[in-house]
Amino acid sequence: MAITGVLRPGHMQLKVLDLDEAVEFYSNVVGLVQTGRDATRAYFKGWDERDHHSLILRDAGEAGMDFYGFKVADDATLATLEADLKNYGVTTERVPAGDLLETGERVRFQIPSGHLIELSSQKTDVGNGMGYINPPPWNEAAERGIAPIRMDHALLYGPDIEKVQALFVDVLGFYLVEHILLEDGKTDLAIWLSCSTKAHDIALVRNEEPGKLHHTAFLLDSWEKVLRAADLMSMNRVTIDMGPTRHGVTRGTTIYAFDNSGNRFETFCGGYQSYPDWEPLTWTWDEVGPAVFYHDRKLNPAFLGVYT
Amino acid sequence: MAITGVLRPGHMQLKVLDLDEAVEFYSNVVGLVQTGRDATRAYFKGWDERDHHSLILRDAGEAGMDFYGFKVADDATLATLEADLKNYGVTTERVPAGDLLETGERVRFQIPSGHLIELSSQKTDVGNGMGYINPPPWNEAAERGIAPIRMDHALLYGPDIEKVQALFVDVLGFYLVEHILLEDGKTDLAIWLSCSTKAHDIALVRNEEPGKLHHTAFLLDSWEKVLRAADLMSMNRVTIDMGPTRHGVTRGTTIYAFDNSGNRFETFCGGYQSYPDWEPLTWTWDEVGPAVFYHDRKLNPAFLGVYT
Amino acid sequence: MAITGVLRPGHMQLKVLDLDEAVEFYSNVVGLVQTGRDATRAYFKGWDERDHHSLILRDAGEAGMDFYGFKVADDATLATLEADLKNYGVTTERVPAGDLLETGERVRFQIPSGHLIELSSQKTDVGNGMGYINPPPWNEAAERGIAPIRMDHALLYGPDIEKVQALFVDVLGFYLVEHILLEDGKTDLAIWLSCSTKAHDIALVRNEEPGKLHHTAFLLDSWEKVLRAADLMSMNRVTIDMGPTRHGVTRGTTIYAFDNSGNRFETFCGGYQSYPDWEPLTWTWDEVGPAVFYHDRKLNPAFLGVYT
Amino acid sequence: MAITGVLRPGHMQLKVLDLDEAVEFYSNVVGLVQTGRDATRAYFKGWDERDHHSLILRDAGEAGMDFYGFKVADDATLATLEADLKNYGVTTERVPAGDLLETGERVRFQIPSGHLIELSSQKTDVGNGMGYINPPPWNEAAERGIAPIRMDHALLYGPDIEKVQALFVDVLGFYLVEHILLEDGKTDLAIWLSCSTKAHDIALVRNEEPGKLHHTAFLLDSWEKVLRAADLMSMNRVTIDMGPTRHGVTRGTTIYAFDNSGNRFETFCGGYQSYPDWEPLTWTWDEVGPAVFYHDRKLNPAFLGVYT
Repeated sequence: MAITGVLRPGHMQLKVLDLDEAVEFYSNVVGLVQTGRDATRAYFKGWDERDHHSLILRDAGEAGMDFYGFKVADDATLATLEADLKNYGVTTERVPAGDLLETGERVRFQIPSGHLIELSSQKTDVGNGMGYINPPPWNEAAERGIAPIRMDHALLYGPDIEKVQALFVDVLGFYLVEHILLEDGKTDLAIWLSCSTKAHDIALVRNEEPGKLHHTAFLLDSWEKVLRAADLMSMNRVTIDMGPTRHGVTRGTTIYAFDNSGNRFETFCGGYQSYPDWEPLTWTWDEVGPAVFYHDRKLNPAFLGVYT
Repeated sequence: MAITGVLRPGHMQLKVLDLDEAVEFYSNVVGLVQTGRDATRAYFKGWDERDHHSLILRDAGEAGMDFYGFKVADDATLATLEADLKNYGVTTERVPAGDLLETGERVRFQIPSGHLIELSSQKTDVGNGMGYINPPPWNEAAERGIAPIRMDHALLYGPDIEKVQALFVDVLGFYLVEHILLEDGKTDLAIWLSCSTKAHDIALVRNEEPGKLHHTAFLLDSWEKVLRAADLMSMNRVTIDMGPTRHGVTRGTTIYAFDNSGNRFETFCGGYQSYPDWEPLTWTWDEVGPAVFYHDRKLNPAFLGVYT
Repeated sequence: MAITGVLRPGHMQLKVLDLDEAVEFYSNVVGLVQTGRDATRAYFKGWDERDHHSLILRDAGEAGMDFYGFKVADDATLATLEADLKNYGVTTERVPAGDLLETGERVRFQIPSGHLIELSSQKTDVGNGMGYINPPPWNEAAERGIAPIRMDHALLYGPDIEKVQALFVDVLGFYLVEHILLEDGKTDLAIWLSCSTKAHDIALVRNEEPGKLHHTAFLLDSWEKVLRAADLMSMNRVTIDMGPTRHGVTRGTTIYAFDNSGNRFETFCGGYQSYPDWEPLTWTWDEVGPAVFYHDRKLNPAFLGVYT
Repeated sequence: MAITGVLRPGHMQLKVLDLDEAVEFYSNVVGLVQTGRDATRAYFKGWDERDHHSLILRDAGEAGMDFYGFKVADDATLATLEADLKNYGVTTERVPAGDLLETGERVRFQIPSGHLIELSSQKTDVGNGMGYINPPPWNEAAERGIAPIRMDHALLYGPDIEKVQALFVDVLGFYLVEHILLEDGKTDLAIWLSCSTKAHDIALVRNEEPGKLHHTAFLLDSWEKVLRAADLMSMNRVTIDMGPTRHGVTRGTTIYAFDNSGNRFETFCGGYQSYPDWEPLTWTWDEVGPAVFYHDRKLNPAFLGVYT
């Protein structure tokens, strides 16, 4: 197979201060489609996603991320990757099917940066609402709120990111797409890893405190939709952290903003498509400004210091 | 690895009536970057491609395609796929390294539709002109002529496309993304196959005459760039076959036009990103119009009848 | 005053075959805002228009245009222009206030091409729904259906267009922006006239049959909105005549389509802004193709022959 | 006439620290077309402007604006407006023809905010490089540097802006399009005035120090061109003050940046088209943030404090 193993980000379970408020925010402002609810959690997907959910909100009284999961090709792949993780010395556990609505068993493990990562192979295909026979290119859900196409990637903050990179590359088949070097010219400040032709499926920034979330990203399909997203954020009094602007890394266009629990999210468009045989792009410390915010050429104060 | 085996379209060798005229056309109007020339051939790449070439023009006194090649992950993959093809009953030959400039050995074979397909693992990385350290998001080459990002895919015309599909899926690891059914509701008129998250890396339309080319497609990065391409076509008196418009299949926006040998090419943007665990989209015969040209909802006369 | 006299197109009364069907079409597909209804007519405005209406649909059992009206600066201007028209030899009549809902007295006259033109100075400001204090840049109405900003201009078909031009220029203060010459290199096939910095507020094509309507145009604010309009037309099975494409004349991007009475309408974006001290642009007969449809460089069969 | 009197901004004479550096900047980065040079000045126009120049750079050893001029309809208008100004109590002087290259006599006067304003009726039509017969929609100059369509407007800082408004409205025929109120809810902080259907041809912010320039604005034709402008600014190490973002006032999209003399300039797109019979839009003091920067909803520190 040309695409095998880990396919894509499958779900992010996000902690929120007030579930009802968060449901309102992610439904009406972000414009995700709510697909389910259980005792403590609400389930969402982007309008063009087919799996039952990608974003899960958990009523936690605090902000942050519980875990970030990837969809793998099938059950056999799940078993193989679980075995590979164990051989690599990673402790894994199986979370039973049904623990997340419409989702099969998940293989969960902690990575050196302190985050819980999951793999799973089964999630109910609920469709994108347009059917699989003679579908239109989009429907009304594509214009309800900011209306991202999908949950796209996450940027995590924690220590030992070189160990995380080794694990994702050696065991899970990811490859390094871009990285930013620290002042020493050797150690990475940040890494962007892909399991696909996306410029990133996961990214990490080196940070003393483990297990932190910098942002969850949602995909838009044009720079004009990025403008529309910024307009809707202002109309809804959403606090924008930065943007609209462009990243040097990935070339993507972007807005960073905060949900009403203080979790940062990104509405993101574009970026180039990359391949695993490509040489990774390197950003040096003196160019960290344009690497992150290409237009301003400097970090905004919140970028490194604010996370959940 | 998450992306393995066949990575992407690597090259298309196109036959042209007059090489000098064609070089002028693909350099200045299409806006590809010329990277080499040998006795009968000129080599081109899109501004953001890194491999030495993707489009090769051969002085042939006629239009059409010589062969269409895919880049595979590495030499070991090439050997494995060669063996798999032989096991599947496909006759393969090795074309020596250096036959195409800056390109390693190629494994060549004919598919049931009559086309020559190639696999290769080695092609010199000549870069995209922006370096791999602190690169800008684009450079002047991105605005010289239509300036596609890359050669993106090809649509081939020939018989026995179900056998082609079987070969690409069972041996080369592609998956079916969309298909259009004939009036019988069972046989495919056309199939779109992917080895990546692109909605198509190769497509085929059933046609009695074997080995024909419908079009080679070049990628643009916005609908506004599609407008710019149409403007440049008119300024340069290029004959537009259809567009700007949208395809129902892939949702991509598009213009079809002809080079000065009569080969159709496409300037294409967008389309969704697909995954191998997704159910293929099916278009029925009564909706073949919107499947191909979503806005007009009918085929233009040239679509089925004109190919090279 | 820098802008005086005739300000802009104020209203078009369009004849339709079935009022209920037409109301449904212009509300839900075109996405105009319905603002009123009287015995035989329904009233509409674009989402960002402030006057009570710009498009009026009349249940007429046939297609075509009843009249096309312009908003003038104030009552004094209306009286002055009425006197100027009479001095020029034009017969005028006053239509009483209230004949059109929320509209003052209208000065009506026939122009040499056989069309009824009106001037009026009073129409109730119903607002654009966002208020005039701290308004957002747009609201939900901007995304309901195709959702044009405003009725923008009309293209009329009839004889004696040089006499129409003289009247509009000499009496009403319009100026010629562009024109297309017939084969003789002297007579105009078509003229584009402006009373503002728009590239056209009214256009005429020479045609033996008098008093005909080629199309009413509605303004969109980006090429991406033109794509969205084309998508919505297809989703709603609207017959597209031509587009998305670009006009050579005005440089505007465009789609021509038909309402369910057979009246052609245009969803139009852009074009340059012109000034009365600019030399008009001239298109010669051999370039009538790109003048009208810049990409295809030829007229489609319907352009000259189909009108209502 | 429907458009009479003052037609549009005609020229801005800008003071620069180093003329050669400024010529290089405005030619290659901003992408204006240089059309002339005299002893101390260089002359520029936007690619689609027809008049000989709109921006004049003067070697002054300091930053700031010498004067801002408007093009009026014709010589008679110039004489009438000159008389009207005198009747209004404004002292005017005639600057001889030829003082600015390819420009007729200018009527110059000082407005209460301390700025020198000019009116002139004659400037050589040098064309936009595409001819006036069968022109293409754009040419290579439209992609050289940021390549604005035209100089669009200016924002001036000075005292007594209510007196400036009276003069522009009562004598020159402008109308108020939008205004921002100070905390007292009565006095204007800022006013936007138009002589056309543009949302502003000149704007003023109340400021103790007279005769100051906040920015000169250049027009782009899409939000995608605004992104391209921001990219080019970063590539050329131009200091961006703010943007890409949207203004609440005018709804325009924008980037503010500084030239190498410290003069702020804006690359601006869009905004609605307004009419003199429309009620002006009012922004209250508590909404001054979104009025200026709609997305961030707050002023950046430089906005009020930095001018030249």
